[in-house]
Amino acid sequence: MHFADALTAATRIKSPVCVGLDPQLGKLPASLPKTPEGVETFCRGIIDATKDIAACVKPQMAFYEVLGWKGMKIFFDVCAYAKEQGLLVIADGKRNDIGSTCEAYADAYLSPGSPIDALTVSPYLGSDGIKPFIERGMKNDKGLFILVKTSNPSSGELQDLPAGDEAVHEHLAQLVESWGMHHLGTESSLSLVGAVVGATYPEELKYLRTLMPHIPFLIPGYGAQGGTAADVAHGFIPDGTGAIVNASRSIIYASKGEDWKEAARTAAEQMAAEIAKVVR
Amino acid sequence: MHFADALTAATRIKSPVCVGLDPQLGKLPASLPKTPEGVETFCRGIIDATKDIAACVKPQMAFYEVLGWKGMKIFFDVCAYAKEQGLLVIADGKRNDIGSTCEAYADAYLSPGSPIDALTVSPYLGSDGIKPFIERGMKNDKGLFILVKTSNPSSGELQDLPAGDEAVHEHLAQLVESWGMHHLGTESSLSLVGAVVGATYPEELKYLRTLMPHIPFLIPGYGAQGGTAADVAHGFIPDGTGAIVNASRSIIYASKGEDWKEAARTAAEQMAAEIAKVVR
Repeated sequence: MHFADALTAATRIKSPVCVGLDPQLGKLPASLPKTPEGVETFCRGIIDATKDIAACVKPQMAFYEVLGWKGMKIFFDVCAYAKEQGLLVIADGKRNDIGSTCEAYADAYLSPGSPIDALTVSPYLGSDGIKPFIERGMKNDKGLFILVKTSNPSSGELQDLPAGDEAVHEHLAQLVESWGMHHLGTESSLSLVGAVVGATYPEELKYLRTLMPHIPFLIPGYGAQGGTAADVAHGFIPDGTGAIVNASRSIIYASKGEDWKEAARTAAEQMAAEIAKVVR
Repeated sequence: MHFADALTAATRIKSPVCVGLDPQLGKLPASLPKTPEGVETFCRGIIDATKDIAACVKPQMAFYEVLGWKGMKIFFDVCAYAKEQGLLVIADGKRNDIGSTCEAYADAYLSPGSPIDALTVSPYLGSDGIKPFIERGMKNDKGLFILVKTSNPSSGELQDLPAGDEAVHEHLAQLVESWGMHHLGTESSLSLVGAVVGATYPEELKYLRTLMPHIPFLIPGYGAQGGTAADVAHGFIPDGTGAIVNASRSIIYASKGEDWKEAARTAAEQMAAEIAKVVR
């Protein structure tokens, strides 16, 4: 199934909640060993606890890479487990390169047998660094999310520079729409090319929705970073789809005690309910 | 030793040549198996063949990641071997993220026990995505190279946008200088913060050298991508240091026959000689 159709269906059936699988050894529940094995148990537990509520999970690759090659084995195992459990899997790697190197990244994560449905991608290299991901997406029913306006305090240093009448990220948004608009789903009017747009800049989020009508949004910054349901509502399209909202810490570290799975589930349910109130 | 001092010493003792370790299964010498094991044998052979000539190697992480977690094991093993053989190791991962995720990337590659000396970093997120790498660099004698003006055809789509009187990449260059100028070596006047500036845009390279007087340059695009010795000469500082020049395909794939190691060595020697003619 086309990635945007799969994303739209999962959003409708479950919710637009995306659970960030960002396992840090020091933050694991007290009952788990602070080891790579503990990380794997933790991720599987969070997946089990939230799979009926969340449309997708987003493992943040840095937290697996920091465990060395063993961490990468866990990363792929966790992705495969999430996929088996019916979740869409967005690998948050923010990869970026050109030519044969970019092809290698696309093959590494978006090949037909990969458990990963979509990859986050950084845009500084321009379309040379994007097209191989789009090609794999078309061929293999995969997707990508391009950083457009990120949620962090210093995101404006490059992203908000005035390029003529518009900010750099607004110019990029138009490029992303042009790259994505020819690769729409059959059930949805959305593209396999997505954009990362932070919840922490709600005015920009609103305007970027108008610049990228066919682009699914991955919205980070909810919860621990300060974004609210009212903030993220601007990222959806009128039929209530077109965006997924990521939360990591507020869900996966909702409790360090024995109830960590139940607490994660409750936090995901609350987040889904909060968003449902403002997105029809 | 401070990263810039180590880089300067290696450049002086050997040459500014950086050998890109970009192993592609389909391009391995005919005598090697087209397997992860073949990749490891190939990388070790190229290291043995070029270690007396090159200041550093630059493994391109995508080509290891595409082999899955086994590829990441080979990546770390190859980095450790290169380090043992006296080469500086620049991991070309173009990593980028913020907050605790950025810290995790910095710990993954620039921790004290890591065989990696420096990591390439993508700048779209601004200083939040840079500072953790600089901190690790100061503490652990490591470095980083920030993408400023890349060698590919579409690099201008974002990098050359006019931000006021200057291009986006020129604005970034001034930020990079400001981030790096307080972290200089004791032997050299160069920073642990470096910049990636492509050989394929020689006029920009020349101007960027004036904007970033304290920043070591990693210059890709030599050889197969079309950059010449005359082009890269602009990236050096007056004492003949301050830049390393990467070539991948033209060195590592110089021959597919039984003579692949000798051919790689000869190609590296030729490149060093070409650069020595134009850089004093």
